[in-house]
Amino acid sequence: MIHEVIITTCYENGEAHIAPMGIRRADGLIVIAPFRPSATLENLQRDAVAVVNMTDNVKIFAGCLTGRRDWPLRPATKIHGRRLEDCLSHMEVEVDHCEEDDLRPRFYCRVVHAQTHRAFSGFNRAQAAVLEAAILVSRLDMLPEEKVRTEIDYHRIAIEKTAGADEREAWQWLMQKIAAHSFADVEETSP
Amino acid sequence: MIHEVIITTCYENGEAHIAPMGIRRADGLIVIAPFRPSATLENLQRDAVAVVNMTDNVKIFAGCLTGRRDWPLRPATKIHGRRLEDCLSHMEVEVDHCEEDDLRPRFYCRVVHAQTHRAFSGFNRAQAAVLEAAILVSRLDMLPEEKVRTEIDYHRIAIEKTAGADEREAWQWLMQKIAAHSFADVEETSP
Repeated sequence: MIHEVIITTCYENGEAHIAPMGIRRADGLIVIAPFRPSATLENLQRDAVAVVNMTDNVKIFAGCLTGRRDWPLRPATKIHGRRLEDCLSHMEVEVDHCEEDDLRPRFYCRVVHAQTHRAFSGFNRAQAAVLEAAILVSRLDMLPEEKVRTEIDYHRIAIEKTAGADEREAWQWLMQKIAAHSFADVEETSP
Repeated sequence: MIHEVIITTCYENGEAHIAPMGIRRADGLIVIAPFRPSATLENLQRDAVAVVNMTDNVKIFAGCLTGRRDWPLRPATKIHGRRLEDCLSHMEVEVDHCEEDDLRPRFYCRVVHAQTHRAFSGFNRAQAAVLEAAILVSRLDMLPEEKVRTEIDYHRIAIEKTAGADEREAWQWLMQKIAAHSFADVEETSP
């Protein structure tokens, strides 16, 4: 089972890096598998700690894909790191061991601190639609234009029917990115 | 903004009724708008209280649409009612006032008690896919077969890639319901 979260790690100079990612749970450990190369991968290799932020603020997911990475942070409690200010809960993790891989090394992490900040408000279809659109945007170079347009048209229905202001803004950011993209001829794949 | 939750109310004989529903927030109140006729509507009119359960257990959503309404409950804290045992948080509400409507009366409710039980685990695409499939199943009589099959094929991708055991089981229940349905000729609409 994969959960979409925001991972915060620290660069060598102490600045925070925030990145959307899918995590798995395995035998009580959290599995973080960042692509090679990526800042999350380098930071995890060097520091061996990260914060896993569970947020329902889809602006942060859409923002990270559209050049908006400056989100308010707070110091972590038990590790050297920072968590998102706007998260429902967060986990501070330490790397237990790493399985090397040419494409996506897998870091198996122990949770050393977990904290709940706000209550879950229930499922929102527009949030799911923003997330799906964000995944499309992250793969624009690999997707044919027609597939992107068809799926976006479909997800727009949930935006129109169930979104709040945050979901609408996140959606607009993603739509601007798609509008600015030059589609090339590519073969169809599924995210 | 609409959140998909599970509403629990009580029948006159004291038994619980549980139903998936979309709620809105308006000026600090929770708006519950059950269709006419429905058990939730009758129970709200008689008792003027309800529990709003925020759960990420999609089996409960899919179960309510496939004849599986027997989910573990616990007594509410401040009102005469029951909450889902498996919820991330719940709110106990009292009706403040009601706007009558021929199709969907709107109950504006005050939150008299709110409680968080478990941390949000992050977004899961398969949970969103089950929810979309559940909405399709709830409208099978109004949808053309091709639209249902196309959308199900699309959502199946997220099930295959990101589901846990609960999401797979919920998905199976919904697929059985669709398989057993006799599609008539209907005009296309969007949920």
